[in-house]
Amino acid sequence: MKKEDKVSRKEESAAVKAESKALREKLTGFQQAIRAKGLPVIVLVEGWAAAGKGGLINELISEIDPRFYNVTTTVVTPEAEARYPFLYPYAGAIPENGKIMFYDSGWMEDCVRKVLHRDITKEQYKARIRSVNEFERQLRDGGYVVLKLFLDISQGEQRRRMDALLSDYETAWRVTGEDLWQQREYKAFRETYEAFMDKTGKTVPWHVLDGSDRKKAARDALRLLVGQIEQALEAGRYVGKPFKERFPLLPMPKLAAVDLSPALTDEEYQKELKKLQKRLGELHNVIYRRKIPVILCYEGWDAAGKGGNIRRIAKPLDPRGFDVIPIASPEAHELNRQYLWRFWTRLPRSGHVCIFDRTWYGRVMVERLEGFCSEDDWQRAYNEINEFERQLTEWGAVVLKFWIQIDQDTQLARFNDRQNTPEKQWKLTEEDWRNREKWPQYEEAIDEMLQKTSTENAPWFIIESNDKKYARIKTLRIVIDALEKACEDHLG
Amino acid sequence: MKKEDKVSRKEESAAVKAESKALREKLTGFQQAIRAKGLPVIVLVEGWAAAGKGGLINELISEIDPRFYNVTTTVVTPEAEARYPFLYPYAGAIPENGKIMFYDSGWMEDCVRKVLHRDITKEQYKARIRSVNEFERQLRDGGYVVLKLFLDISQGEQRRRMDALLSDYETAWRVTGEDLWQQREYKAFRETYEAFMDKTGKTVPWHVLDGSDRKKAARDALRLLVGQIEQALEAGRYVGKPFKERFPLLPMPKLAAVDLSPALTDEEYQKELKKLQKRLGELHNVIYRRKIPVILCYEGWDAAGKGGNIRRIAKPLDPRGFDVIPIASPEAHELNRQYLWRFWTRLPRSGHVCIFDRTWYGRVMVERLEGFCSEDDWQRAYNEINEFERQLTEWGAVVLKFWIQIDQDTQLARFNDRQNTPEKQWKLTEEDWRNREKWPQYEEAIDEMLQKTSTENAPWFIIESNDKKYARIKTLRIVIDALEKACEDHLG
Repeated sequence: MKKEDKVSRKEESAAVKAESKALREKLTGFQQAIRAKGLPVIVLVEGWAAAGKGGLINELISEIDPRFYNVTTTVVTPEAEARYPFLYPYAGAIPENGKIMFYDSGWMEDCVRKVLHRDITKEQYKARIRSVNEFERQLRDGGYVVLKLFLDISQGEQRRRMDALLSDYETAWRVTGEDLWQQREYKAFRETYEAFMDKTGKTVPWHVLDGSDRKKAARDALRLLVGQIEQALEAGRYVGKPFKERFPLLPMPKLAAVDLSPALTDEEYQKELKKLQKRLGELHNVIYRRKIPVILCYEGWDAAGKGGNIRRIAKPLDPRGFDVIPIASPEAHELNRQYLWRFWTRLPRSGHVCIFDRTWYGRVMVERLEGFCSEDDWQRAYNEINEFERQLTEWGAVVLKFWIQIDQDTQLARFNDRQNTPEKQWKLTEEDWRNREKWPQYEEAIDEMLQKTSTENAPWFIIESNDKKYARIKTLRIVIDALEKACEDHLG
Repeated sequence: MKKEDKVSRKEESAAVKAESKALREKLTGFQQAIRAKGLPVIVLVEGWAAAGKGGLINELISEIDPRFYNVTTTVVTPEAEARYPFLYPYAGAIPENGKIMFYDSGWMEDCVRKVLHRDITKEQYKARIRSVNEFERQLRDGGYVVLKLFLDISQGEQRRRMDALLSDYETAWRVTGEDLWQQREYKAFRETYEAFMDKTGKTVPWHVLDGSDRKKAARDALRLLVGQIEQALEAGRYVGKPFKERFPLLPMPKLAAVDLSPALTDEEYQKELKKLQKRLGELHNVIYRRKIPVILCYEGWDAAGKGGNIRRIAKPLDPRGFDVIPIASPEAHELNRQYLWRFWTRLPRSGHVCIFDRTWYGRVMVERLEGFCSEDDWQRAYNEINEFERQLTEWGAVVLKFWIQIDQDTQLARFNDRQNTPEKQWKLTEEDWRNREKWPQYEEAIDEMLQKTSTENAPWFIIESNDKKYARIKTLRIVIDALEKACEDHLG
């Protein structure tokens, strides 16, 4: 090496060091603004084994107050993998407002390794790529800064680094058989990584960093991180615009057109109830053994009879295999995250039945009408929810959604009954009366919701509940039909 | 069988059925009161394999609104087992106020099977029994109704039931190899079950139900459940009295006697910091590989320098292996459970370092002084916390607690500095000023806390922090010493 080269290298290295220092100081300076503005930041660090992902994260965080960031390394166990949707651990780990979450590899590695291992089919891989795009867009549109980095090294560089790690007892354990397999299959991995980035870089772009020079890679990552945070702080929290997506939708009637007269006699009801509950109990056994997840969603007017309906479904189920999840107003730690987070984290394990007593549709009903989110937010939610539910059904879940329908007179009669019956008074609140006054606005919102979110995979069912007995039997039949179909599919 | 016998059997069976029905109705009637009074109820159902635990739970819940109860079946995977304290899944599953949680077998089975499998030593088994007693007492004293049932069947009855299950494809999968092993080792199990109940029945009694008659067993369980709930509703929520426990305590000085003059020059500080952080980084590597959990607890006056101290500890740690957990006021779902719940559920996995920025000691400081709990509650907490921390160290955790100490003048100077420095203003709140006015009351509470909760296994360290540099170096040294010792112990 010539003397001038050495000098210029040295100068360059000093310049990188100085710039990194300045960037880190800038990042530290942003901390308070990130917190005050409630900006959530996601940094996904993907890349080759031995490329230095951990070291890179170390460089990024070294001056940040540890109360403002977290690092997550998702270890997907085969057990957990099979029992939850693949995005589950990543969606569960999103940061709350005002914090930074670093993913030390994440959904990209999860997809690429799995497809190369042939743990998932090409078909499943394609579906995953779509889900990843949806997941990232939803986060971005929900105001998250999402920075995706890929740390790149050559096959030779990877070999040298692994050899170095393996030559020392203190570090050898860091190299796994998986990593050695990647070194051998470097070419296939490179192709798949590149194709993955190509297919997932349109909404939230990828940034490939040259990992051969650790200091420069860290500087480049700092530039990106500082730049994006700066931009987000200046521009204010991003709110995504609604967008068109052609989900095949099922036709739904307007609520006003629903005939609420169907009713059952006590005798018919008791006979059917017994028969259907017996059948549902048997099916629960089967879905438990076949590990089919079942998600039942209940929405409906106050006093429509959701609780009693749920009770009739729950009764024949093995209590070890189901959960009823009442959804109330979100608490602080829930409000501080993307609105679907509190549902992601409550998903059932495969083979279990999860009954949501009110759901994520609060977004397009109460949150819309009470102004708890912006118009863009709830307008966007129809698609976001359709995507979320498609992710659930692609995981294998049976997703059924019930709108429990009554008319205004019936509601009034039930409110009065509640008011006049001491044991029932707790069920009636001031808010119920207030909501009742907004019936027309609610009806409009509900009609729009039913039109825009009833999909083949996650259909809505309007349950006529002026007669509660009729409503319960109808719901039981729908659940049974769907489970029978799911069991057949799983056999086929 | 004589005719009279048949008749009397039939009559008895009808009587059991009628009583069960009446009891179930009573239970349904209590639902609203349980909810209104915020009474949390735990029903632990233990017993022999094939004794009918699931069926019993089914009978108990059949008329309860599914929004008011949950059933938990803890499947302890070998992975999870090794990485968390054994009570972790059970403590995490306690119900919130106003709800009933049924444990479909729980900590008893976990202990008995493990000791008979020789997965744990006799010594560990003894420690577990003590932990179980502590856990149950803490729940009871915290106002939980705890009902413990053991469903008993003979060896012959168990054999017949297993044979019946195994003879049908639809049910055969319910019998596991573990169950068959229990059938073979029935005698050893019986002895161990009985001894376990003997040793854990003093605080919260066991109720052994004859499982040979399912209907009667359910009736008996209903009687107990309804009786206990009725009693709790009448008497009002139980608040446990403080009790004496002879924890060996380390002598601690009064805060007023602490010499706050120690200080370091910048030069000494920088030199030591570099050296100690390097060493801590190396040790983190070792504890990660040896899967030693580390829990660092920070408490201290406002503006004492906790944040900066934590940052110096965190800096050399591999970010994938530690978490800083800032503890703020509890949210609703946390207030609705025993006060240690939000810490149980935040414990680190083994091999990870968890830094609590404020801790469970809030109970005997802010909650005591602001009247957020009763005097009995905080008086009891010293022992409860000592027990909790002993459970953590018996699991293998290194538990270190730091009280970051400054004097009033130093606090005032720092408050003023914060007030006058725009970037720091967010750190200073009205509450800080209010707390400052209560310095003498806080000092008294802190002195008492330090006296009563500094144990050999989880000691307090007073960190003189008028000079922050001195404080950081002292803390680093303490952490390093403890980790070196832990690594030696684990080698030994």
